[in-house]
Amino acid sequence: MDSTSNKTFKLSMNPPSKVSKAAITPTRQESFPEWYQAIIKEADLAENSAVKGCMVLKPNGYAIWEQIQGQFDPMLKKAGVKNTAFPLFIPLEYFQREAKHAEGFATEVAVVTHRRLVKNSDGLLEPSAPLEEPLVVRPTSEMIIGDSMSRWIQSHRDLPLKINQWCSVVRMEMRPRVFLRTTEFWWHEGHSAHGSKDEAEKHALEMFKLYRDFVTDILAVPVIPGEKIPSERFAGADKTFTIEAMMQDKKALQAATSHYLGQNFAKAMNIEFQNAVGDREFAYTTSWGMSTRIIGAMIMVHSDDDGLRLPPRIAPLQVIILPVIPKDEVRESVLEYARKIKSALDNVKFHGRPLSIEVDERDMRGGDKNWQAIKRGIPLRIEVGPKEIESNQLVLSRRDMPTGTKGFFSVDQLIDGIVELLEDQQASFLKQAQDILDNNIRTDLKTFEEMKEFFSTSGEEDEGVRGWVRAKWCGDESTLDVLKEMKLTVRCIPLDNDTSEGTCILTGRKATMEVIFARAY
Amino acid sequence: MDSTSNKTFKLSMNPPSKVSKAAITPTRQESFPEWYQAIIKEADLAENSAVKGCMVLKPNGYAIWEQIQGQFDPMLKKAGVKNTAFPLFIPLEYFQREAKHAEGFATEVAVVTHRRLVKNSDGLLEPSAPLEEPLVVRPTSEMIIGDSMSRWIQSHRDLPLKINQWCSVVRMEMRPRVFLRTTEFWWHEGHSAHGSKDEAEKHALEMFKLYRDFVTDILAVPVIPGEKIPSERFAGADKTFTIEAMMQDKKALQAATSHYLGQNFAKAMNIEFQNAVGDREFAYTTSWGMSTRIIGAMIMVHSDDDGLRLPPRIAPLQVIILPVIPKDEVRESVLEYARKIKSALDNVKFHGRPLSIEVDERDMRGGDKNWQAIKRGIPLRIEVGPKEIESNQLVLSRRDMPTGTKGFFSVDQLIDGIVELLEDQQASFLKQAQDILDNNIRTDLKTFEEMKEFFSTSGEEDEGVRGWVRAKWCGDESTLDVLKEMKLTVRCIPLDNDTSEGTCILTGRKATMEVIFARAY
Repeated sequence: MDSTSNKTFKLSMNPPSKVSKAAITPTRQESFPEWYQAIIKEADLAENSAVKGCMVLKPNGYAIWEQIQGQFDPMLKKAGVKNTAFPLFIPLEYFQREAKHAEGFATEVAVVTHRRLVKNSDGLLEPSAPLEEPLVVRPTSEMIIGDSMSRWIQSHRDLPLKINQWCSVVRMEMRPRVFLRTTEFWWHEGHSAHGSKDEAEKHALEMFKLYRDFVTDILAVPVIPGEKIPSERFAGADKTFTIEAMMQDKKALQAATSHYLGQNFAKAMNIEFQNAVGDREFAYTTSWGMSTRIIGAMIMVHSDDDGLRLPPRIAPLQVIILPVIPKDEVRESVLEYARKIKSALDNVKFHGRPLSIEVDERDMRGGDKNWQAIKRGIPLRIEVGPKEIESNQLVLSRRDMPTGTKGFFSVDQLIDGIVELLEDQQASFLKQAQDILDNNIRTDLKTFEEMKEFFSTSGEEDEGVRGWVRAKWCGDESTLDVLKEMKLTVRCIPLDNDTSEGTCILTGRKATMEVIFARAY
Repeated sequence: MDSTSNKTFKLSMNPPSKVSKAAITPTRQESFPEWYQAIIKEADLAENSAVKGCMVLKPNGYAIWEQIQGQFDPMLKKAGVKNTAFPLFIPLEYFQREAKHAEGFATEVAVVTHRRLVKNSDGLLEPSAPLEEPLVVRPTSEMIIGDSMSRWIQSHRDLPLKINQWCSVVRMEMRPRVFLRTTEFWWHEGHSAHGSKDEAEKHALEMFKLYRDFVTDILAVPVIPGEKIPSERFAGADKTFTIEAMMQDKKALQAATSHYLGQNFAKAMNIEFQNAVGDREFAYTTSWGMSTRIIGAMIMVHSDDDGLRLPPRIAPLQVIILPVIPKDEVRESVLEYARKIKSALDNVKFHGRPLSIEVDERDMRGGDKNWQAIKRGIPLRIEVGPKEIESNQLVLSRRDMPTGTKGFFSVDQLIDGIVELLEDQQASFLKQAQDILDNNIRTDLKTFEEMKEFFSTSGEEDEGVRGWVRAKWCGDESTLDVLKEMKLTVRCIPLDNDTSEGTCILTGRKATMEVIFARAY
């Protein structure tokens, strides 16, 4: 092995001689929503369950969530956040203590009213033993965590308090879509309490930037970070920060949010502390979360008409070796060669974890295995057969390049270059997504007529649009009614706002604030 | 540093000059149940919540659960088990498909009946929009997982299927006790389907042995592995395997179970496959779980009258360095010395993970810090002050030895010997627990009179007993009524059963089976 090749190794890949037929039916072009469902089915990620609106995360889908947990949780811990577990239920009396919060979630909560089942005269079980007080299945945990905070926090020395839980929450969903909108979904929810407004706001912003970094660096999903306008805030929040990602149909998806809650929840739940000068004061709280929805975002940002595509830093399986076995006599030698390559790569570390690599030894047609690996989104595929054994080579395919693109390399070249290669691939996924985002935000539209024209393709809510519009807005929420028929919303006030005076795109009034208008998931 | 000392390093510790007063009130002797609650409070592990019967796992308690997850999950993966996530809810119709299962759980399930809240005339929220079909909050997930299995399994090539989820489940508990009996608890539940009875039974046994190994090797909790008698089986199971641990009050605690479910659930949920000869056949399923209850077991097995004790393999924090600062002028030099020791140990790996070590830099009395560390169960405490800096030494205390026992070592000795020391400590925890178990199982009692005499101290259910009795039993469950007034149950038929003919301790009849009689949590 030539160790100097380590740095000089550059991949040269050959484009496909012919373009193969799309493996996913329908294509993105034909029907983006159906393409999305087909991607999930072919990659075997998740399915609808017998419980209306609830999904099942199958092993391939859950493995992605485990990667998210495994890589984001250490970032939380490093930020001083400690994990906990709180009850799934919230007593009804607590749930309604913060008026806006209760109003915001009341229409979509599952309510437990009974604590046993008994047989009726037909011999069928039915609810029995009504609870004295109904229990709300948590749609989010501010109230039940606030109750504990009220006990844990007595003095300014108990602050800041930063806790988190990984769990599922329930919001009854009438029009479910796997990953994007489901009655039950999995998430992490962080909650903090602070001794001052400034510190709490700063912390909400800090966590929000953690999401931005994680989603960009690990999931290769570029986002526009910004603040929500008042009507789009989390119910009960004083400020909501969001990262908005653009899907390939140019719709927006809110990928994670962080909320500055002021003293609203502290007052509702009695989170009081003695400050440094001995006075009682309500704490300032925040909450922040990211859910399995982000998997839906990754799918719609990265995948193509051949199936799922996963950036290597988040892919549960990063490399698959596909033995090509033209006749039975060579089976053992090909498998042995494949296993040897796997062993050689087993000690490689990529982005802080051991490379995840498998030899697909199943007794199946090689072409079927290859297409399955493509549809599962495995970043690197390595094909080896008798020819490769002879030349001590391998055939490499990268999921970030068009299907059929191939490179021929020696085993040593691969071993020397694989980390660089995976990093290159990670960057390539981000670049492709960044290009879509950058090329589809219109900043040159000035009037409502122009904006209407731009969004004029918008039909059914499911349909994509031509892009996003970034423009001045006067900030008067009563002006937003005109967006409804176009199914548009204000996604955020971008952090890098240009606050020079301009003209409100909706009304023609003076305006200083820039916002993003888009159709959203 | 003398590298040869690595092997020859042996710890010599000096016993305390005087025995200190117990830090926990009451002591185990005074009231075991109250001592248990005090241990949890002082170690800040968990608390009761506003939801009846539900606990909150506080950061210190959840950290133990994270250790259990972090170390047990790889064992599951190595056994070919894949993680998933299934809905929290089970449609009522599904829930009652397996008659025994439904009967077993019907009296303790939370039932969701409504899907929104609306304001009543008093302005208070109340349940609205009744569901067409009530949803049972999972007490266990056989039915909802079985539904997916019925779709996933079509052919013998889809078998075996081995999946798992980490989640919480709900069983309404009228007399809750933190960790031991709570309405909501956290667990993992594994489920498998197989093509033959033999393979399924073998798998149930294999998982059961995994629990035995994990609980013994990592938690240092010795157990008696065995099979449950029919009336003690999981509702719907054909066989239930259990590991039974002895608490310090000599009561038994079922630490984990594994069930062979036969075709009962496959028939109820229609899990059918085409076997190798083309016939349709119902699958054979198993399920197996371990919950946060095990934390309660660890507490009651290991802790003493000074607080929690955690074996080093499971302790979230393994080493704490306590700076002794007699006067402000030495603060910085002592802290620096403490941090230097920490840095020197930061790269040490113990049992496959980096050593977890902290310097307690809080501005608090040294004695208070020391007692807090004792009560939290941190395996090793290292005290350093000006004297230690001068002699390049440190003062070491081991939580597995009586409080006040101290050793004086050089920093190099510690660095060289710490892995050996922690392993020794792990073994010491297991040995202490094993001695309690071994010394308190009576195998010499032959008659019911003798057994009654042995258990005669038994009063209230909360009270401990003198031990367990291992004796012959005829197997007729109608003979067990006499156990009720003594609050005893048959814990298991130990795996290492001596099946020679003997006399049933309850009836005097001929008997070949040995069982364990005990009072249980």
